[in-house]
Amino acid sequence: MKVIESTGEMQKFSESMRLAGKKIAFVPTMGYLHDGHLMLMREGRKQGDCLVSSIYVNPTQFGPGEDFEKYPRDLGRDLSLCEETGVDVVFYPSNDDMYPRGYQTFVNVEKVTLNLCGASRPGHFRGVTTVCAKLFNIVKPHVTVFGKKDFQQLVTIKRMVADLNMDLEVVGMPTMREPDGLAMSSRNTYLKPEERESALSLSRSLRLAKNLYKKGERDAGKILQDVRSFIESHPHAKIDYAKICDTGTMEDVERMDGETVLALAVRVGLPRLIDNYVFGEPLDIP
Amino acid sequence: MKVIESTGEMQKFSESMRLAGKKIAFVPTMGYLHDGHLMLMREGRKQGDCLVSSIYVNPTQFGPGEDFEKYPRDLGRDLSLCEETGVDVVFYPSNDDMYPRGYQTFVNVEKVTLNLCGASRPGHFRGVTTVCAKLFNIVKPHVTVFGKKDFQQLVTIKRMVADLNMDLEVVGMPTMREPDGLAMSSRNTYLKPEERESALSLSRSLRLAKNLYKKGERDAGKILQDVRSFIESHPHAKIDYAKICDTGTMEDVERMDGETVLALAVRVGLPRLIDNYVFGEPLDIP
Repeated sequence: MKVIESTGEMQKFSESMRLAGKKIAFVPTMGYLHDGHLMLMREGRKQGDCLVSSIYVNPTQFGPGEDFEKYPRDLGRDLSLCEETGVDVVFYPSNDDMYPRGYQTFVNVEKVTLNLCGASRPGHFRGVTTVCAKLFNIVKPHVTVFGKKDFQQLVTIKRMVADLNMDLEVVGMPTMREPDGLAMSSRNTYLKPEERESALSLSRSLRLAKNLYKKGERDAGKILQDVRSFIESHPHAKIDYAKICDTGTMEDVERMDGETVLALAVRVGLPRLIDNYVFGEPLDIP
Repeated sequence: MKVIESTGEMQKFSESMRLAGKKIAFVPTMGYLHDGHLMLMREGRKQGDCLVSSIYVNPTQFGPGEDFEKYPRDLGRDLSLCEETGVDVVFYPSNDDMYPRGYQTFVNVEKVTLNLCGASRPGHFRGVTTVCAKLFNIVKPHVTVFGKKDFQQLVTIKRMVADLNMDLEVVGMPTMREPDGLAMSSRNTYLKPEERESALSLSRSLRLAKNLYKKGERDAGKILQDVRSFIESHPHAKIDYAKICDTGTMEDVERMDGETVLALAVRVGLPRLIDNYVFGEPLDIP
């Protein structure tokens, strides 16, 4: 396994792979890898001849007062896990190389980023789309693999790729969960033992919503009312948002027709946890 | 010569060229070609194995009340000129293909676009960088050729390419002029005969500034004073801006140390004409 730190060297490597007719699969991460990341890498391993993964805690997607400094890091462990999972190249760039003096260009996806995490974390998605545009230009993948846990992020990246005619396929993979149902996240490491039960209120409230939907409930407001009171009954859980949105536009819906997503962001002690569940099938656009 | 209208087909063609090891040179235009465009194409012809030129009047770089609808178009003549000049592929996309329903992604270069045309034409450069990012992803060039007449545009594109790690070289070519000194522009077609003398005030005032600089004048304000009064002495000329800027930051300078540009935008009758002259050498950044 190669570790490449320079953006220029990474780009040269990828261009040579493309010229040799190799298919490049790419899994961008912020490191502190868990089984969710490893599943994305296994999918990338299947899809590509050459599997590149990046480990980069991107400063531009953190707001002031967010956890950029504190974000958990463990490069040694991450490199071992990448090697075991069959990664060919780990791209591990520096901030100075990614954002040199005078840096001033940003990519903005304007509509699907307005709601949910976009509303709670101003500038977050601008940072995500900008770093992904850069990483795609550096790593030159044919296919990139993202998790569905960050559902709005997946929608946003797909939108950017389509709008800017980036010639790559974006694959979304299901959320990986701990045995007790907690969605895997690097930020779970912040959870104290006594907060675990409250953290489980996210996945459990999604199950609750799923059951209501199965019984025929399509009124988003009614489902959200039950979801909210369930989460709020947990002592350490503080809801940031609980919304049901159209998966195409990410706008709130009143009726759950077509494909919709119940998206949650809940602060449990220190970490702000997110989770979601997708209902129904996408509407055919006539 | 091929004419390709579909973004998908263009992208496939370019990818096959790259896989075959061919070097792609790209000259984006809005059509209504003049000798300035043809010189860019001849440079592209020299640099690449395969020369692609686009003809696309990009709606997102025109503001409300600007001349998008009226912008001169003559596809038949443009195609003949491209063929004569050795273009291999003309890319001629439709607005529906470039900006389909739901389009919402924009690339913004934030600082070098604030002054000059960026100040006079809000949103203009956002449209330019967005369409160029799209065109670069569709045409996949190794090298792209721009004119120096749109000096701020050239600086902005170079900045975007560097910041977003786009793997291509941006070449800037000198401004082509009519025998009387008028910088070539598709918008010159709007000029009435009686406005010609006023239109020449741009290039003549640049010459005036060049002579002052040669004599040792380095005070931007003094040079601008002479330039402004010269232009204003012409009956049809109305200055939009006349500024001297650092070519790296595009910010106004007081002293003309390092590399600076005198940039002019002047309305002469209907058209708003631009022109510029670059002084000095770039400062070595320590």
